[in-house]
Amino acid sequence: MLWTVISLVVSALAIGVAAYFYKWVQNLPVAEGNISQIGQLIRNGAFTFLKREYRILAVFVSIVSILILLVFPSPIWQGNAIDNILAAIAYIIGSIFSGYAGYVGISIATIANVRSASAAKKGLAPSYMAGFRGGAVMGMAVVSAALAGAALLHLIIPEKAELVMAFSFGASSLALFAKAGGGIFTKTADIAADLIGKVELGIPEDDPRNPAVIADNVGDNVGDVAGMGADLFDSQVASLAAALVIAAPLGQIEVIFCFGALGLLASIIGVLSARVGENGDPGKALNGGTYLTCGIFVVLTLIASLVSQFNMRIWGATVLGMLVGVIIGVTSEFFTGDDKKPVAKVAEACKSGPAFTILSGFSYGLVSIMPSIIGIGIAALGAYKLLEPLGGSYPMFGISMAAIGMLSIVGMIISNDAYGPIVDNARGLAEMGNLGDDVLEITDKLDSAGNTAKAITKGFAIGAAGLTVIALLGAFQEIVFSVTQKTIEFNLMDPLVFFGTLVGAAIPAVFSAMLMLGVNRNSQKMVDEIHRQFNTIEGLKEGKPGVMPEYEKCIDIATVGAIKELIPAGLTAIIITLIVGFVGGVQAMGGFLAGNIVTGLFLALLMSNAGGLWDNAKKFIEAGNFGGKGSDAHKAAVIGDTVGDPFKDTAGPSINTQITVVSLVASITAAVFAMVSLFS
Amino acid sequence: MLWTVISLVVSALAIGVAAYFYKWVQNLPVAEGNISQIGQLIRNGAFTFLKREYRILAVFVSIVSILILLVFPSPIWQGNAIDNILAAIAYIIGSIFSGYAGYVGISIATIANVRSASAAKKGLAPSYMAGFRGGAVMGMAVVSAALAGAALLHLIIPEKAELVMAFSFGASSLALFAKAGGGIFTKTADIAADLIGKVELGIPEDDPRNPAVIADNVGDNVGDVAGMGADLFDSQVASLAAALVIAAPLGQIEVIFCFGALGLLASIIGVLSARVGENGDPGKALNGGTYLTCGIFVVLTLIASLVSQFNMRIWGATVLGMLVGVIIGVTSEFFTGDDKKPVAKVAEACKSGPAFTILSGFSYGLVSIMPSIIGIGIAALGAYKLLEPLGGSYPMFGISMAAIGMLSIVGMIISNDAYGPIVDNARGLAEMGNLGDDVLEITDKLDSAGNTAKAITKGFAIGAAGLTVIALLGAFQEIVFSVTQKTIEFNLMDPLVFFGTLVGAAIPAVFSAMLMLGVNRNSQKMVDEIHRQFNTIEGLKEGKPGVMPEYEKCIDIATVGAIKELIPAGLTAIIITLIVGFVGGVQAMGGFLAGNIVTGLFLALLMSNAGGLWDNAKKFIEAGNFGGKGSDAHKAAVIGDTVGDPFKDTAGPSINTQITVVSLVASITAAVFAMVSLFS
Repeated sequence: MLWTVISLVVSALAIGVAAYFYKWVQNLPVAEGNISQIGQLIRNGAFTFLKREYRILAVFVSIVSILILLVFPSPIWQGNAIDNILAAIAYIIGSIFSGYAGYVGISIATIANVRSASAAKKGLAPSYMAGFRGGAVMGMAVVSAALAGAALLHLIIPEKAELVMAFSFGASSLALFAKAGGGIFTKTADIAADLIGKVELGIPEDDPRNPAVIADNVGDNVGDVAGMGADLFDSQVASLAAALVIAAPLGQIEVIFCFGALGLLASIIGVLSARVGENGDPGKALNGGTYLTCGIFVVLTLIASLVSQFNMRIWGATVLGMLVGVIIGVTSEFFTGDDKKPVAKVAEACKSGPAFTILSGFSYGLVSIMPSIIGIGIAALGAYKLLEPLGGSYPMFGISMAAIGMLSIVGMIISNDAYGPIVDNARGLAEMGNLGDDVLEITDKLDSAGNTAKAITKGFAIGAAGLTVIALLGAFQEIVFSVTQKTIEFNLMDPLVFFGTLVGAAIPAVFSAMLMLGVNRNSQKMVDEIHRQFNTIEGLKEGKPGVMPEYEKCIDIATVGAIKELIPAGLTAIIITLIVGFVGGVQAMGGFLAGNIVTGLFLALLMSNAGGLWDNAKKFIEAGNFGGKGSDAHKAAVIGDTVGDPFKDTAGPSINTQITVVSLVASITAAVFAMVSLFS
Repeated sequence: MLWTVISLVVSALAIGVAAYFYKWVQNLPVAEGNISQIGQLIRNGAFTFLKREYRILAVFVSIVSILILLVFPSPIWQGNAIDNILAAIAYIIGSIFSGYAGYVGISIATIANVRSASAAKKGLAPSYMAGFRGGAVMGMAVVSAALAGAALLHLIIPEKAELVMAFSFGASSLALFAKAGGGIFTKTADIAADLIGKVELGIPEDDPRNPAVIADNVGDNVGDVAGMGADLFDSQVASLAAALVIAAPLGQIEVIFCFGALGLLASIIGVLSARVGENGDPGKALNGGTYLTCGIFVVLTLIASLVSQFNMRIWGATVLGMLVGVIIGVTSEFFTGDDKKPVAKVAEACKSGPAFTILSGFSYGLVSIMPSIIGIGIAALGAYKLLEPLGGSYPMFGISMAAIGMLSIVGMIISNDAYGPIVDNARGLAEMGNLGDDVLEITDKLDSAGNTAKAITKGFAIGAAGLTVIALLGAFQEIVFSVTQKTIEFNLMDPLVFFGTLVGAAIPAVFSAMLMLGVNRNSQKMVDEIHRQFNTIEGLKEGKPGVMPEYEKCIDIATVGAIKELIPAGLTAIIITLIVGFVGGVQAMGGFLAGNIVTGLFLALLMSNAGGLWDNAKKFIEAGNFGGKGSDAHKAAVIGDTVGDPFKDTAGPSINTQITVVSLVASITAAVFAMVSLFS
């Protein structure tokens, strides 16, 4: 139990660091003028959305907790009712923790944005620190919640590893909707603001005359901060859950908590040592922190493995996972980095018009799938083979440890990731609050560093999700075994497995299409509203002093739209999973999960990378290449970027969560469908 | 052997019908004016491309035939050298037949286009007949070649069912390059012609001043006629090959030839009875012919099964396959039909600009994957379950018969499909030859009927390819068994299988990206050339009488570009297959094929349907909706259509062939990789 307890201690330490950073950021000075007032508007908008979203999700969580009570870990009319009650409670706790992750994120991000903008008056370094430490609050809070939650569950009821499955499902199902809802909100506002502001009127980004501009900044918080936080919380919990379920019969739970605790410790050290010089490169600082954390993790886990006498093969699998995470991140960066060939090629294609912009970006996005997906394959294969000599379910445990390795530094990753929307907001506040060109230049620099860091962290997130769901497939098999006492093999030549695979392959497509169509519908509504305001509010277009747009109308459209759209997509994925289970039993479900993983990774990588590519191609042109701002190439690039927006910020990242949720739904209902199904 | 012989007889009959139609079309009158001269330009351009393409492919075929000689059916240094020599010969014959299919297609299509345009002066019915019977020449020629080839191989060397595998590989590998090369050619010219003609200069489609206009019409022939013919020839041969390999140990070869012969007979009847009234709807006539053929096939095979006392379950599986083909076709039509909701929605989105056009079309394309892929899953599952009571490898045989069923009416399908580019060409010739507005109206009607029919036939083609490769997976297992005497199971929890699955999933992405980037590069080159001509040839833009553009320069750019680009993409797919086999052995290859099928179907359906959707959304606007021609919505729709062009006519349909080729490469090299591999 030593490492389980240490996990709690390190989690407490991380919470301490988070609290310290929170206070530190809060005490930073706020610039004069209307910036604090605008900041308050953003904060209110974000919390309003969050409240409405959580109200809906509370209903969902209540219903699902009743279902869990009925069927998990075994149908309540057959097994032990206490187990089911515990599972339902674990599920509810998981969803509350996930909600808390989003809440903390928004709470700090909407304070840090104002401070970061204000600090930019003093220079790049203080502004960077405000943004980064704001992000780190979230990083520390999220990871400690995940680790402490799993450790507590294990300490209180050590013999029930599957409870963590219910905990994980709570985290995932909330993350699914938070990610989808936030993603729809943010891109609705972003696209509408850009289309009217940049394309139609030619006014700068974040111009306060634009009625959608506050909604756009709110979106950064609810989509990129709260949604992303819930997403990574979910990934981490899922990787822990998969590993714990597989490790329980092997008696290897301690090593999971050991590596989890040391990963968090490494992240704490990495976060505390983050610095940038006044003339330094903030992008390098962010990535440098990531690499440093990786290094610390490798050393710490090596020492711990030697001291605690864990099998060194487990350590090898874990480090392999982490290394592949880095490699995936670096290749993603190749495809989206603005100093690399693909971005330059797509930017060049913009000269020939929007069709070529789309075609070339889409094509490079397709190519970018290859290295990442092969990387995931190599990590899984390598981890499996490393632990194969240990026999039994050790090889599958190896894969789950590779996932843990890839997510080991997630504290650092979230810090970097949350930094992005904070400094993006800071840029907006600087523009709206008229803080001057010097400040804008600094916030621009910080913003673009966030994009670079994002490429790498996204690589980690998708890679980890991939490995986690492979491990979850193993956990699924383990659970089916515990119910039926039969080891099922998912043989592709079994038509039920193949049928499941085909259906599973279609899910990410339908899911992401529903989200994108939602963004489409809502942003068209918002465009209409902006037109209405410009046409009816006198003096708005001309920027007459004292004339203000009705910001809250746009926030309302985004909120209502996102709330309406977030449920159907997620529910479709869950319901089809249940139908497949009912029709084809656990065999079909195994294939279903595999098909879902394969096309899920495929689409997530395609959309994230193509989206990032178009974004940076646009920035490449805005930097003065191929005609620069206002040229035809730029117009084409803006169209590419608009297509890429819901790709990379709505659909792409939501697919991760969708795969995890479906895997967990399968595990949770395995007992039922092992008993009742049509064809097996 | 009865049905094998009947297959030859029916094939001979089909060739007779083809010859009769060929003469019939050839003897139709040609209108006065320069139309025959322009027709000759198109014909010469098409044959020039074909010759250069075949010259390159001859080198490829020679190299591969040597490799086959060395390793298939077993390494020459271990097995019987005679078998290897026969396999190499079968391979060469397969590739020659495939080349012949393309040759016949171009030969008739470039005669029928001129006749169809000329006949339009007399009315819709004669023009339709010229187009349809032209297409039917190809349909009859292709299907009889496939059936007769397989039957002959079987008659001459009855005990070697795997020879037909080599024959099929010859057909596939040629089809892969013909489809890719033709697809690149046609979209290079189409996009360049549209961008300059429609978008920049606002001149009508097929305006003779446009230097790319002949290349565009040549492209219809080399891409849609020759490429498509090779593709469907390949699908049909592959489905026969898979069924024969699986059927051989079961002693069920006769039923395959029976159903193949009756399918061709049904197509002959369908083709001969095709008619349209002067005020009739040509689209309905085409689809009506398809349904008629299906009905005849069902009745004939029912009778034959009863008479020849085949197991009725086999008949059931075959008919199930055919029915699912119809269902897939009808759902594809829902997503691309211009009287259905998706097209109207995408057309409406065009009002908000190109980004929304792309996003909504792409989203509907994603949704459209679902019904088709589930349909394929149901067909496979149903056919398997139907034949499961017969035991052994019968269930897998059921799947292969479902594929045969789906391709049973391929003679009719090719006729419909080849009709499309012929009347499209006729439209171009009518415009360039100044045949008047009445003629243009008729050819427009015929052209749009071709698009409607295409939606259904494409559904068949993709569905059949899906089932065929599932059957090929069964054949692969069969071949591995014959080499190793072990039934390998492709268990998804086996890390080699999973690794293979992930790599296989990436192939269609990289393959299609390479093709699209090829189109991108070449059409940009052609755009530059068109600009050059308009800038340097005096009087061209103004349409001064006697001033002609240098058509052949554009044809040359498309030819050279396509030839250069067609090899790398196909070769990449083949080489990665070999690497996976070498690294992970037959286990990894099994997973590789499965992953390849899943994302291959996924991308093929997405691209075909999204492309068709954008095309028809543009036509919907051109018909006067949402502002009609020249409006901003129309401009956005043209951009969508341009993105969709390589989606639906280059990458999408080539993926079918890519999957088949990779499956056959795996089967052919199975013996080698069962013996030598790194990790298994």
